[in-house]
Amino acid sequence: MKKAALLGCGVVGGGVAAIMQDNAAFLEKSVGEPVELKYILEMRDCSGEPWADRVIRDFALIESDPEISVVAECIGGVTVAYDFVRRSLLAGKSVVTCNKQLIAEKGLELLGIAKEKGLFLLFEASVGGGIPLLRPLTNCLSANRIDDIYGIVNGTTNYILTQMIECGQDFSDALREAQRLGYAEADPTADVDGLDAMRKICILADLCFGSNVPPERVPTEGIRGVTGEDALLADRLGYAIKLLAYARRVEGEGERFTAFVAPHLVKKGTLLASVSGVMNAVVVHGNAVGECLFYGAGAGRMPTASAMVADIIDTMRRGDGRKFIDWGEEQPERFADPESLPSRWYVRYQNGCAGDAMENCVSENGVCGGITARPMTLAELREAFGATEILSRFRVLD
Amino acid sequence: MKKAALLGCGVVGGGVAAIMQDNAAFLEKSVGEPVELKYILEMRDCSGEPWADRVIRDFALIESDPEISVVAECIGGVTVAYDFVRRSLLAGKSVVTCNKQLIAEKGLELLGIAKEKGLFLLFEASVGGGIPLLRPLTNCLSANRIDDIYGIVNGTTNYILTQMIECGQDFSDALREAQRLGYAEADPTADVDGLDAMRKICILADLCFGSNVPPERVPTEGIRGVTGEDALLADRLGYAIKLLAYARRVEGEGERFTAFVAPHLVKKGTLLASVSGVMNAVVVHGNAVGECLFYGAGAGRMPTASAMVADIIDTMRRGDGRKFIDWGEEQPERFADPESLPSRWYVRYQNGCAGDAMENCVSENGVCGGITARPMTLAELREAFGATEILSRFRVLD
Repeated sequence: MKKAALLGCGVVGGGVAAIMQDNAAFLEKSVGEPVELKYILEMRDCSGEPWADRVIRDFALIESDPEISVVAECIGGVTVAYDFVRRSLLAGKSVVTCNKQLIAEKGLELLGIAKEKGLFLLFEASVGGGIPLLRPLTNCLSANRIDDIYGIVNGTTNYILTQMIECGQDFSDALREAQRLGYAEADPTADVDGLDAMRKICILADLCFGSNVPPERVPTEGIRGVTGEDALLADRLGYAIKLLAYARRVEGEGERFTAFVAPHLVKKGTLLASVSGVMNAVVVHGNAVGECLFYGAGAGRMPTASAMVADIIDTMRRGDGRKFIDWGEEQPERFADPESLPSRWYVRYQNGCAGDAMENCVSENGVCGGITARPMTLAELREAFGATEILSRFRVLD
Repeated sequence: MKKAALLGCGVVGGGVAAIMQDNAAFLEKSVGEPVELKYILEMRDCSGEPWADRVIRDFALIESDPEISVVAECIGGVTVAYDFVRRSLLAGKSVVTCNKQLIAEKGLELLGIAKEKGLFLLFEASVGGGIPLLRPLTNCLSANRIDDIYGIVNGTTNYILTQMIECGQDFSDALREAQRLGYAEADPTADVDGLDAMRKICILADLCFGSNVPPERVPTEGIRGVTGEDALLADRLGYAIKLLAYARRVEGEGERFTAFVAPHLVKKGTLLASVSGVMNAVVVHGNAVGECLFYGAGAGRMPTASAMVADIIDTMRRGDGRKFIDWGEEQPERFADPESLPSRWYVRYQNGCAGDAMENCVSENGVCGGITARPMTLAELREAFGATEILSRFRVLD
């Protein structure tokens, strides 16, 4: 009999409890022995819930119970969650989490403790929700040098952008609709301003490039600057606007790389442009495998819980097999400023004054949208436009 | 120092040798000690190749060398490859292979030997080439009951269909073009008639539904029956034609499932319809995670070799961790006849005689193409058409 404890039983935690109950027979077959969820740490009143008999309010019970081999953290944030995850590892328990903020900010330290103690710290659910992503990346693609990785990793913003593109809504209407449907929080900052996507690209860059990327280092632009006009002009140019979290190896000496979050124009007809609503997708380029894409539900109760339960199963059945996930200390000299990264740009500007920098321009009510004829840095773009005001500019994914 | 042997050094084998040579430092870091490719079993003259000094012609050398812990099989077919893989396992060596025919036909027996001996038999490269697929399926999605799995798993036929759709070529011209580019063999039977896709869906169904699916049980229809007219009519109806390998759980008693290979109409704008050229993609529906899609290069030297080298690394670093991949004996009573599976159908027929079975009809030169108004079995479709000749019919993916 293997025993687990759950920290927090809200949306995702409730899903973990449900899967472990409903799929008990199935889990037993996978693990080779019965699996029990012994404790659920939850502060709110849970009487009436089917799992009410397992609810406790004192973490020390879990910490001191030698029967508990794995702790699943669904609290969120980096205060209590950090304390409990750290103490779980120090008490000799493997940890599974969906908490991207915790891993992005404290992953290096926590993975260090896990390694020292010979334990697992798994966080498949922290990026891409239910999409199998981190394990394929670190395992199936282990023969590859990863050249770049990018994708749609925030469902809320993708839903808003999809509404703007497909229904002609402007940003604030689409946001209200997303809030009404429960896709966006009352305070939408973490999603809309790109923080959630930024935390996820930190984790992906940590894993792909092997040195810690502190969140404060990653330039992050959300979608508040995307107007209905941009969505329309981009559509007429043959593109969709997508918020991409982006990391890539930079050619040249010193194994440098960069990471950032920003809206991009993505060519219609590509898979990434077809990712609509709250779905997520991540593209990986490896030097042997070429391009791969992973698509699925990036959030939500059951998808996220599905990834967490798979991680729980993994800690239970892997025994003493080697653990493969970790990365090194920050190496600031390796992190290149994304502003130096050339790309083609979409620009919206007042009609008729962009010189010869642009091609494929379309215009609407005196406002022009076009794509630069060649790749350039942001500084070069500004120079090309001179005194002409740039109303908005987004990179084109080529 | 870990030592491996390679059986066959053609297209994929050559890629394995190249990755192991070029990425030696990287592999050493992954495995924790140096990795050497000690022998390459190859019958043709290899003088002049960079790895010529390791070429041997006698398999018994590998079989009897206790230093060899893993054998990578790139011979193909089920005669010599079967013999050597079996003997490798019996000699206590883990095996990695990209040979889908071998796994589809002999997987059950070979996995049994591997399990008994406590060895790995890994075959990530056998389905979807370089796309991480089998490991995510058996590992990351292990908390899910898989409801269906289907996809584009043969690049040659997808290239031919893409040419027919996008360039208006007919089947024989597109096939000649594919042969000229090296995407199709001189004898294209295994690809064009769906055998390659059928072997892959056998492996996926084995893994997802847990009982062996013998290849001869899986109804297989290739793409020879898809005409340029079908491609055109489908396009006008808003669909692309794709050869899908398809397996699904069948509702009802006894955990039944079915598997088959056939051309399908796939709605334009979906990710699967956007998979063009030689690329592959597989869709999985799990009861917790919902829909996931995995996309990438399904064949080719480096992608396939990339997956094989990842498997080699895995055998070397997993130590005594539990092995998770296997399935049970065939249970014929669980395999449902796909003819009983209702779906909407695309039908091409002589103009004006389909009664009220069809909707959304379009016509071209007296020939009509339409989609049935409701899902039906093949028998029901035939009945609905009565005496009217069905010129071609393909399932619609809904």
